Amino acid sequence: MLAPTGRTGLGALTRDLGILFGGDYNPEQWEPDVWREDVALMRQAGVNLVTLGVFSWARIEPRPGDHDFAWLDEVLSLLHAAGIAVDLATPTASPPPWLGLRWPETRAVTQDGVRLSHGSRNHFCPSSPVYRERALAIARALAERYGAHPAVRMWHVGNEYGQVCHCDLCGAELQAWLRRRHGTIAELNRAWGTAFWGQRYDDWREIVPPRAAPYLLNPTQVLDHRRFASDQLLAVYREQRDVIRRLAPGTPVTTNFMGFHHATDYWRWAPEVDVVADDVYGDPADPRSPAALALTHDLMRSLAGGEPWMVMEQAAGAVNWRPHNVPKSPARMRLDSLRAIARGADGSCFFQWRASAFGAERFHSALLPHAGADTRLHRAVQAHSAELRRLASVVGTGVEARAAIVFDWSSWWAAEEPAQPSDRLRVLPQAHAYYQPLWQAGIAVDVVGPGADLDGYDLVVAPQLYLVEDDDAARLRGVVERGGVLLLGPFSAVADRDGHVRPGRFPAPFSDLVGASGEEYCPLPDAGAPVVSEALWDFTAYTWAERLRLEGGEAVAQFAGADLEGCPAIVRRQHPSGGQAWYVATTPPQEVLDAVVRQCAHAAGVRGVLDDLPEGVEAVRRGPVLFLLNANPDERVVALPGPFRDLLTGDDHTSTARLPAEGAVALIERTP
Amino acid sequence: MLAPTGRTGLGALTRDLGILFGGDYNPEQWEPDVWREDVALMRQAGVNLVTLGVFSWARIEPRPGDHDFAWLDEVLSLLHAAGIAVDLATPTASPPPWLGLRWPETRAVTQDGVRLSHGSRNHFCPSSPVYRERALAIARALAERYGAHPAVRMWHVGNEYGQVCHCDLCGAELQAWLRRRHGTIAELNRAWGTAFWGQRYDDWREIVPPRAAPYLLNPTQVLDHRRFASDQLLAVYREQRDVIRRLAPGTPVTTNFMGFHHATDYWRWAPEVDVVADDVYGDPADPRSPAALALTHDLMRSLAGGEPWMVMEQAAGAVNWRPHNVPKSPARMRLDSLRAIARGADGSCFFQWRASAFGAERFHSALLPHAGADTRLHRAVQAHSAELRRLASVVGTGVEARAAIVFDWSSWWAAEEPAQPSDRLRVLPQAHAYYQPLWQAGIAVDVVGPGADLDGYDLVVAPQLYLVEDDDAARLRGVVERGGVLLLGPFSAVADRDGHVRPGRFPAPFSDLVGASGEEYCPLPDAGAPVVSEALWDFTAYTWAERLRLEGGEAVAQFAGADLEGCPAIVRRQHPSGGQAWYVATTPPQEVLDAVVRQCAHAAGVRGVLDDLPEGVEAVRRGPVLFLLNANPDERVVALPGPFRDLLTGDDHTSTARLPAEGAVALIERTP
Amino acid sequence: MLAPTGRTGLGALTRDLGILFGGDYNPEQWEPDVWREDVALMRQAGVNLVTLGVFSWARIEPRPGDHDFAWLDEVLSLLHAAGIAVDLATPTASPPPWLGLRWPETRAVTQDGVRLSHGSRNHFCPSSPVYRERALAIARALAERYGAHPAVRMWHVGNEYGQVCHCDLCGAELQAWLRRRHGTIAELNRAWGTAFWGQRYDDWREIVPPRAAPYLLNPTQVLDHRRFASDQLLAVYREQRDVIRRLAPGTPVTTNFMGFHHATDYWRWAPEVDVVADDVYGDPADPRSPAALALTHDLMRSLAGGEPWMVMEQAAGAVNWRPHNVPKSPARMRLDSLRAIARGADGSCFFQWRASAFGAERFHSALLPHAGADTRLHRAVQAHSAELRRLASVVGTGVEARAAIVFDWSSWWAAEEPAQPSDRLRVLPQAHAYYQPLWQAGIAVDVVGPGADLDGYDLVVAPQLYLVEDDDAARLRGVVERGGVLLLGPFSAVADRDGHVRPGRFPAPFSDLVGASGEEYCPLPDAGAPVVSEALWDFTAYTWAERLRLEGGEAVAQFAGADLEGCPAIVRRQHPSGGQAWYVATTPPQEVLDAVVRQCAHAAGVRGVLDDLPEGVEAVRRGPVLFLLNANPDERVVALPGPFRDLLTGDDHTSTARLPAEGAVALIERTP
Repeated sequence: MLAPTGRTGLGALTRDLGILFGGDYNPEQWEPDVWREDVALMRQAGVNLVTLGVFSWARIEPRPGDHDFAWLDEVLSLLHAAGIAVDLATPTASPPPWLGLRWPETRAVTQDGVRLSHGSRNHFCPSSPVYRERALAIARALAERYGAHPAVRMWHVGNEYGQVCHCDLCGAELQAWLRRRHGTIAELNRAWGTAFWGQRYDDWREIVPPRAAPYLLNPTQVLDHRRFASDQLLAVYREQRDVIRRLAPGTPVTTNFMGFHHATDYWRWAPEVDVVADDVYGDPADPRSPAALALTHDLMRSLAGGEPWMVMEQAAGAVNWRPHNVPKSPARMRLDSLRAIARGADGSCFFQWRASAFGAERFHSALLPHAGADTRLHRAVQAHSAELRRLASVVGTGVEARAAIVFDWSSWWAAEEPAQPSDRLRVLPQAHAYYQPLWQAGIAVDVVGPGADLDGYDLVVAPQLYLVEDDDAARLRGVVERGGVLLLGPFSAVADRDGHVRPGRFPAPFSDLVGASGEEYCPLPDAGAPVVSEALWDFTAYTWAERLRLEGGEAVAQFAGADLEGCPAIVRRQHPSGGQAWYVATTPPQEVLDAVVRQCAHAAGVRGVLDDLPEGVEAVRRGPVLFLLNANPDERVVALPGPFRDLLTGDDHTSTARLPAEGAVALIERTP
Repeated sequence: MLAPTGRTGLGALTRDLGILFGGDYNPEQWEPDVWREDVALMRQAGVNLVTLGVFSWARIEPRPGDHDFAWLDEVLSLLHAAGIAVDLATPTASPPPWLGLRWPETRAVTQDGVRLSHGSRNHFCPSSPVYRERALAIARALAERYGAHPAVRMWHVGNEYGQVCHCDLCGAELQAWLRRRHGTIAELNRAWGTAFWGQRYDDWREIVPPRAAPYLLNPTQVLDHRRFASDQLLAVYREQRDVIRRLAPGTPVTTNFMGFHHATDYWRWAPEVDVVADDVYGDPADPRSPAALALTHDLMRSLAGGEPWMVMEQAAGAVNWRPHNVPKSPARMRLDSLRAIARGADGSCFFQWRASAFGAERFHSALLPHAGADTRLHRAVQAHSAELRRLASVVGTGVEARAAIVFDWSSWWAAEEPAQPSDRLRVLPQAHAYYQPLWQAGIAVDVVGPGADLDGYDLVVAPQLYLVEDDDAARLRGVVERGGVLLLGPFSAVADRDGHVRPGRFPAPFSDLVGASGEEYCPLPDAGAPVVSEALWDFTAYTWAERLRLEGGEAVAQFAGADLEGCPAIVRRQHPSGGQAWYVATTPPQEVLDAVVRQCAHAAGVRGVLDDLPEGVEAVRRGPVLFLLNANPDERVVALPGPFRDLLTGDDHTSTARLPAEGAVALIERTP
Repeated sequence: MLAPTGRTGLGALTRDLGILFGGDYNPEQWEPDVWREDVALMRQAGVNLVTLGVFSWARIEPRPGDHDFAWLDEVLSLLHAAGIAVDLATPTASPPPWLGLRWPETRAVTQDGVRLSHGSRNHFCPSSPVYRERALAIARALAERYGAHPAVRMWHVGNEYGQVCHCDLCGAELQAWLRRRHGTIAELNRAWGTAFWGQRYDDWREIVPPRAAPYLLNPTQVLDHRRFASDQLLAVYREQRDVIRRLAPGTPVTTNFMGFHHATDYWRWAPEVDVVADDVYGDPADPRSPAALALTHDLMRSLAGGEPWMVMEQAAGAVNWRPHNVPKSPARMRLDSLRAIARGADGSCFFQWRASAFGAERFHSALLPHAGADTRLHRAVQAHSAELRRLASVVGTGVEARAAIVFDWSSWWAAEEPAQPSDRLRVLPQAHAYYQPLWQAGIAVDVVGPGADLDGYDLVVAPQLYLVEDDDAARLRGVVERGGVLLLGPFSAVADRDGHVRPGRFPAPFSDLVGASGEEYCPLPDAGAPVVSEALWDFTAYTWAERLRLEGGEAVAQFAGADLEGCPAIVRRQHPSGGQAWYVATTPPQEVLDAVVRQCAHAAGVRGVLDDLPEGVEAVRRGPVLFLLNANPDERVVALPGPFRDLLTGDDHTSTARLPAEGAVALIERTP
């Protein structure tokens, strides 16, 4: 069950403004006469929130200590006069050239020792005292000037924190972080397993970030460095947030997350933001994108403790940073936006308001294209904005979930280090594979991280929880002990918090729970291995297998050939509590996995919000509203359990809803 | 119409020597007794020009200031005595080890900050004052000694200029270059769009070359750096040229171009050379190579203002720098050489005379193989040399073209920066696709660059002119206004001179001309999009589409499905002048594009030199001679409009010419 | 004929212990109570030798000069008390962090100038005086302390020498090495062909290791640097070996080889080790692995001069450093181990005894898995150990070979430099292709290197001897002159000792011998070229061809089309001595090559130990024992020439041996 957070949240804003709609606004790229046109067009388009100033440091402070706020004063006045709220950014993601030239140590360094240059963005070192002082100073100057400005309803610190630096300043901060984590150098040596390959440290000062080396690096060094690197960026965020909180009390402060971003452990970040805000860039050319986006949204809602979150950035059409950028259609733009709302977002904002004429993102779409307002895209933006205003009844509501998926950044990092049994087993694809049948069945899912209370869940799925700490293992056992269902994917519970292989037969903390134990990881030859199953059907497994033996559980499926003859492939143990523990010791085809997950959900008594959903149609209940989203490129008809009205169109649906290609409805029950 | 250049040119040489035939000669790799054998074999092989001394710096100046010219004196005497002219090189492409060790700043630096080492070639930094002084000094010493030597009929500065350096010396030169281009730092900030991502410069000294950065670099910074890097190499060339011109007045000075070489804008280089000379290395294993070579030759002839140019280097057999080097057959060597002559070359030289026994190019073929003169290859060399002497009537003549293809380095650079809509749309492949049907039809084509006068052309094709300056856009409009045909390929006229997206509907400077305008670039899903056409035929488009609407033009083809239903795919507008403007808003299959180009040529009244050429047979008229070149691996028969004689064999052809596999004829009309 | 070496060898050990069985033991990764369990389990598993201390430098010397030997004293006592012999390592492969931090110059530098960091292993610079002093000091301290310890029966210097460093210290050592090799700078300039691309050196101090450069490096510079780099590591090895020899006279000293490891010329290393010891890591998922392993074992036996060698490391199950690591089955582990024994090994050891819980190799299998002794893998280990004890009769014996394969590191290095005619022709795959039919026929093969005496061989095969020195060429000619058969593969004898192309028609030193000569290397178009043959059959050749003409030889096969019509593809010349010389000027399909090799063997009178072996069954006679090894995944039946007993099982076989999938027998003749 997601824990209430007591955070400031979006409540005050959405109470005044309804669902937030707008985007990044970069007036510094345009002449003042364009600002006036922008504000007029924003009003027409129903924009009620813009993020301002993200990349304005060099404009505000063109040389050290000289400040120019006049343009910002004017833009804020224009927006405020038009009733458009502002999410004001500290412009600290992109320091001006002068900073990195006068103080080269403010620029980050790669693993190979190359000091990065200005000319792009996010080139700062998060450990540089000069960078941090200068960044704090400009954040303070902004907060002092605009902390009480009535247009400023939210603060946005930096942008897309995610870089990693390997310089000596980061080395010193890493040493301090490790000292806090491990206490003594002896404990660090134990935790890092430095007895291997003779890496023992005699002093904290001997420790450096992972750098170019002739062969494999120490995996715990790399793991702890990833933890540190995320924390170090968080420290940068926090000190700016704190100065804003002091000078603009009561206004929520946030920064934009990036979904399952590899470099940042958002379980540690989420408690530090007042609003969980996400940048969402699914690829419309990828057929797996709808389910993947849904999982990301569930993560964000869960990071927000079940309270509303917001989409801070998304594309209205195409992005420009993939090698080949197929644009979203208007229907797809609408569908993707509604998916976020359905899964708990109270804001659907875009990057950016007006398409840039220059710079590295000039081919990234915007709410207002280069071709102007008389365009299909902009008309779709206006229509969607109007539609969102009809969804007031979902504002502030949540999504009730009795199923949870476990996701942990440390485990992800550790599982994908080099020199694992196979690099074909990947954490995010595994998460998507296990989430897919839940998504398809309309089963609401929370995402839970380390330390999460699992009491409210009847079904907990850990697709590949490679690393698990002891107390989390105990909580997972608790699910079964109180009658719930736990489904463990392959190569789970292998490692402890330091990434050490847990001794004994695997999965060590769960082998009695699942009634089987293993002794060897068996990446499969390319031909795969045959598996037989009475409970499911026979199939060929590819990629992954494990050598298990039954110890009280039952084999739902077992290998039937090659070197694994007779070994269980999927095991289940029924417990006296009524609970079940499942362990999938292979990577079955998706349809087999679908069946396994459906059986687990059935055993847990967890059902979707609608039965018999057509393939590719997603159903979510948020507050009073039942969202149906059709990701298919053609029409689907969904059977309804009674009469409903579609809030988006006002149309009544009696026993079925007809969803056009990439269409969606937001239904409320009505008396027949 | 190509403008006369007034350059010194090849005239004096070819008047004396006829078509130039020979190659690079590196006697410093051999003992003096070999020199004598070389000269004797050169005479047998009909060699009349050798390029001497390209990599001889360390031999001439083994340590700073010590000069050894004796060997060169002797070689020049030997060659002169044999009547072989010399293209004498300044040996400045490859400074000796002592230069880079004593003055490390003379060595170039990569984008990642790695200073390159000696041990290869072309490792110098073009901005290093020490390199440039030392290079000038040795050029001066050579010119003083040999400026009046009767054997020296041409000067060759450096070799294959093309490197790019990112060091601080280059940074300072870049700053000066930018100051000249942009005048004020404010204008630079505007041109570079530094408002994006907060990159504003407060001072010229803050500007650095593009270097390692965490994400996308500023695209105009990269574009201007490419322009600068080409100009900087040109400055190195020019100062050596100038010292030679002073000391050897009247002798032509050149350097060797490399076709469509990415790093050097030859439109800016060509006016600075007295002879346009090209290194030509088509891959005989690539079936598209013949047409691609033809386009490259047309570029060279156009760079030379329509006057004769020369092949400075080509391979007689295999090269050695591809991963897998299929050799040319003798027939192919001859065919490739004749193609260059047919397209305006008055010289066909080779790298190199005698195959090296050592060094990085020891497996590069030569006129004289390791196995000696009793080889198939060398016999073919002798035969071809003799054959070329029979083509005296083409010397000094040109190729008349009423069609032109637009090619601009700045546009190429800008179009292929990262973070465009699609990296599958590439400038050179597009140029080849549009050139292919003209080549196949025997239509002569000039290549025109920025600033070109288009008055003489009835058909102008701009395959992907992504960046176009305003005055060039006006000249292109002029083609239609005076009754010609303009064919624009996709993603053209997108950007202005600074690479900014032109505001409004695209192609902004041409939308009224073509009678359609667009609002969105639509890279296609891998399945492509269906297109219907009455004027052509139905087809599927892959890779690229644009969302257009008609505004006075007619749709020659239109999309019929997916998200582009009803959008024009190919548009044409007939103008009162009789002219036509076409716009191809997609990447059609080659055969569709062939039909479009043929229709354009027909509308422009532009015809090939022969009708009904068999596929893969190329026809070019140069001066009085009709060249027919068969790129096919088997025989083709070509219908002739009358009786001809083949200059190469003396054979008479009446109504047909029978061309063997990879065979060629050089026909002159004869009275029946 | 392999030359006796007079080395100390394995004799004393195997006389006491029989076939060596055990592995690396890293007690520093475990608490002392585990040591006791380890020793007990080792005894149960029949372990008689462990390699100790390989990565213990930081444990022994936690800070400069402080030594802790107590733990090692205890481990040695425990092992000795259990009768387990010790191969004691100098821990110099992995210096502690303090070394590289206090003396940064002890860390190696990449070609791009990046100084490597600690955190992995083998990061030392082999030219650093500080590293070498400190490494010698710890080697000396160990030898002083344990030189007379009764458990220590072998010394193991460093580990898997193989790194290459490009720093300035290595540059200075390279200069000294070159001075020794070439004598004068003039001779170096000749040997390196520095006349090419103007690379002439005026002074030894101008020479640097190959470093980042703009284009191809001088190939002889690269070749000599590879020779130097191997020698430099060997110097590091030798100085540690010498101190041990002084302090522990009579105990054999070794280091572990890595098969056909690219960086180390083991022909130069082998005379310096008392025991040839190899690390053997075939990929069980690669069907070509059995024959490739056999060739590697034949190399090791040949490096040992025909005397016994040992497997120092192999995996009992999976490795973890491939992207996807399919584990060995127990049958495969046994088969691979027996193959080494069959081919001359008197020891079969593993990496490592107990699987690590942490560090970069925690997923590398071990004799004792994470899951402990109650595992399929460990039971197989115990069974195999017992089995090996039944093979006492092979200890000390050899394998008699009348066929030899030529393999030379310098030739390998030179042949695979960039800018060769084709990178699709690769030395090791060619070696495997020519070895395959010999392996399949049960023909024993020695591997011979430069300088080898070939007198004992009736068949000598040089699959791709690109570089050959004059005296080796003479020895190869001698094979034919005394009536033997020489089979030369394509692109052989191209270069001399400096990598210069030998002048004239190729293969220059052998063209009269084979009765044909060539003038052009002809990498083939992807479609290949047709070849006709009466002696074999018609086929299509891919990848490689050469333009030859017959000069006294006969064409066994000839090209029939394309540009090679009529050229010989495979030639043979019968000599008055009765000998034959063959030259294969192409890369025929494997089955054609099989036939060629079989004809050569037949002509040489060389037969396998058994006729009519089923495909994939390997037969080797070592001493009195006939090994039959079935690499197939299913049963094979082998006809026997009489009654035999299987030493492994005690089973009698009369006329046939039935080998299960991946099964093996070790047969001795018995009286019927």
